[in-house]
Amino acid sequence: MEMNANYDRIKKDIEEFRKYTSTPDRGCTRFPYTKEDFDARNYIINEMKKIGLNIHIDAIGNIRARLDGKDANAPVVMTGSHLDTVFQGGIFDGIAGVVCGLEAMRIFVENNIETNNPVELVVFVGEEGCDFDSPYIGSKVMTGRLGIEDLKNIKNKDGNSVYDAAVDFGLNPEELSKDVISSTDIKAMIELHVEQSLVLDYENIPIGIVKGIAGLKRLEIELEGVANHSGATPMHLRQDPMVTAAEIICFVNNIVGQEGSTSTVGTVGRIECIPNLVNAIAGKVTFTIDIRDIDEEVIERVTKLIIKKIKEVSKFHNVKSEIHNIGSGTPMKLSNSIIKTIEQVAISKNIKTKLMNSGAGHDACMFKDVTDVGMIFVPSVNGRSHVPEEFTRYEDLQLGCEVLFETIVKLAKQ
Amino acid sequence: MEMNANYDRIKKDIEEFRKYTSTPDRGCTRFPYTKEDFDARNYIINEMKKIGLNIHIDAIGNIRARLDGKDANAPVVMTGSHLDTVFQGGIFDGIAGVVCGLEAMRIFVENNIETNNPVELVVFVGEEGCDFDSPYIGSKVMTGRLGIEDLKNIKNKDGNSVYDAAVDFGLNPEELSKDVISSTDIKAMIELHVEQSLVLDYENIPIGIVKGIAGLKRLEIELEGVANHSGATPMHLRQDPMVTAAEIICFVNNIVGQEGSTSTVGTVGRIECIPNLVNAIAGKVTFTIDIRDIDEEVIERVTKLIIKKIKEVSKFHNVKSEIHNIGSGTPMKLSNSIIKTIEQVAISKNIKTKLMNSGAGHDACMFKDVTDVGMIFVPSVNGRSHVPEEFTRYEDLQLGCEVLFETIVKLAKQ
Repeated sequence: MEMNANYDRIKKDIEEFRKYTSTPDRGCTRFPYTKEDFDARNYIINEMKKIGLNIHIDAIGNIRARLDGKDANAPVVMTGSHLDTVFQGGIFDGIAGVVCGLEAMRIFVENNIETNNPVELVVFVGEEGCDFDSPYIGSKVMTGRLGIEDLKNIKNKDGNSVYDAAVDFGLNPEELSKDVISSTDIKAMIELHVEQSLVLDYENIPIGIVKGIAGLKRLEIELEGVANHSGATPMHLRQDPMVTAAEIICFVNNIVGQEGSTSTVGTVGRIECIPNLVNAIAGKVTFTIDIRDIDEEVIERVTKLIIKKIKEVSKFHNVKSEIHNIGSGTPMKLSNSIIKTIEQVAISKNIKTKLMNSGAGHDACMFKDVTDVGMIFVPSVNGRSHVPEEFTRYEDLQLGCEVLFETIVKLAKQ
Repeated sequence: MEMNANYDRIKKDIEEFRKYTSTPDRGCTRFPYTKEDFDARNYIINEMKKIGLNIHIDAIGNIRARLDGKDANAPVVMTGSHLDTVFQGGIFDGIAGVVCGLEAMRIFVENNIETNNPVELVVFVGEEGCDFDSPYIGSKVMTGRLGIEDLKNIKNKDGNSVYDAAVDFGLNPEELSKDVISSTDIKAMIELHVEQSLVLDYENIPIGIVKGIAGLKRLEIELEGVANHSGATPMHLRQDPMVTAAEIICFVNNIVGQEGSTSTVGTVGRIECIPNLVNAIAGKVTFTIDIRDIDEEVIERVTKLIIKKIKEVSKFHNVKSEIHNIGSGTPMKLSNSIIKTIEQVAISKNIKTKLMNSGAGHDACMFKDVTDVGMIFVPSVNGRSHVPEEFTRYEDLQLGCEVLFETIVKLAKQ
């Protein structure tokens, strides 16, 4: 089924969503349940109406737009992503999946392609979840992972809950149980997303097929030594948490290479020093370690080695260490059958693909206990994401849309 | 000449000065030309008057209290230190030298000890120089290192100059040239000071004889990589300035041990990271390196090796580096003859001493081009200084005072 996605329409849609931002001079900022969100939703709802999709806004605000199949009772094949962004983020993260999903629906309608199963495009509410500091709001509600009480407890800095924000937005979250999807309702969930890393761009491959989502372990390390005069304190009498931290950071970087696989990553992205003066040995250094891999056993092994090293190095430098577990997540494997379906589509279209892991989670992952999940990645230029410079070439979105469309056809038509 | 310093008087003086602080609940804060400074000065002037010293307040506010010698025209033997503190500092840094100097003057007076040369106790204005961010104000003016224009240009955060502050304090800085000391006016300058490090305390030695003041080199390193998602960016595609910084910090610590002497120190005390998030590879890391030694050649050699390493490591990690020279100071050797005099005094009193370098500069060092300079260190418990916990045992101050007194006797009596 050789159908072409429309480059111009995809570009126009993406550029349309760029307008709905609270920071017009610096990237795209569109938090859920705001004026910008309202306007962006109106645009997509209008586009959905143009092609005659059956639209249902669920109790938390997810927009579900359905195209019936031959078998009205058959489980749905779903695609979708989100329209909300981080603060001063880009215009592709999430939006790419919505726009390509919309374009896929247009192809179905314009070409009168009938499927056996219904096909649904979903716009999930609050995937980034800024400013509630709580991601995947819509997809978690839809898959039964968040209930009414949870929504009342998730609050922004002003103390307003997601529940309240949804009510103010004209929704009725009390009804949310009606919209929770069960495994009998859905056949597959497939999401197209920008890669948010530089592997595809670097290797010049237009399509990534996600085989798994990395799990993670996050530690916060507090090292307490003795702040002292940088000139007056001989090296052998120091208790320097900065040197201790530096040795641990080097170890994290090295051990990931030695003990991990190509999918293992370890990052120290945050560090603070007290008193932080040029002429004083540090008294206290705090930093974070973020370890991720698709293989939970590797995460555990690397984490253990890092903790052992922290203790050794701290002891050597006569520095007190505290290790706090500040986050963890289990790795997830995506559906092998969907992976194979995407591969078949790509082979038939003679498109180069790369089987890869995702370092970040996405809305589709919330469906893992409900249905088969698949993901298609398109390249992020220079791997930039969550920044105004975020960019994906429109021809890659076009190609991604065509792969998405044909994958949906294969999943829904049989 | 076996004279005893009075333990109780020393303790009382120190504790008296503790009262004059703008932060009574947290350490001692006494900036020059403030109410606290005024009160502290009044106390010492009153004590000087009690023992009949000739008091002269110079144009910038240094308090000079003289005891005439047999030869009125002979050059003076001077001792002294400062009464100002850092923000929330201790009660010994500077004050110890003033109090021990005062007690030494009392011994002279009470025991009718006549010297050939005049002896003078000086209380220098603004050695810490907070909040003007300019140290050694009084001693620099006295030794001709700061003139009227300089004083007008050194300003605090509110834009007030040292000159203005001195005028508001009732002084007349226009007259300062009259008070500049020349080499014919002075025979020796000797300052007692707390060590501000932990060597004497650690080695249980009551008296340090300073042989030199370390020189220094200060660098600020800016490393710019590419901020990216911590989960989605494979290790081999990263340009991580945090790992780069960590490797440099480890190198600084190691090279000082390998290439330096026991007097070489290297410190990274300040670090900042952007965007500083647990889930993002750092985009930019800035940190400082402070290298000190008594041997300028060692400072140069170590600095060169560090700069070479910064370039290598940055290139390896594909990170841009900028190296800024943000400070330097030449090492200084103290007078050998005064060192020998102090040693003789200590031997005669059967006191254990350690010949050592000072990592920090002091008022006395400003006199190096004018006269012979000597310094006596007394132990700082646990090496703590510039903090409320700063402490020196009163028996060590008593012993230090006796060594100071007898050194002055030897220098002034011949």
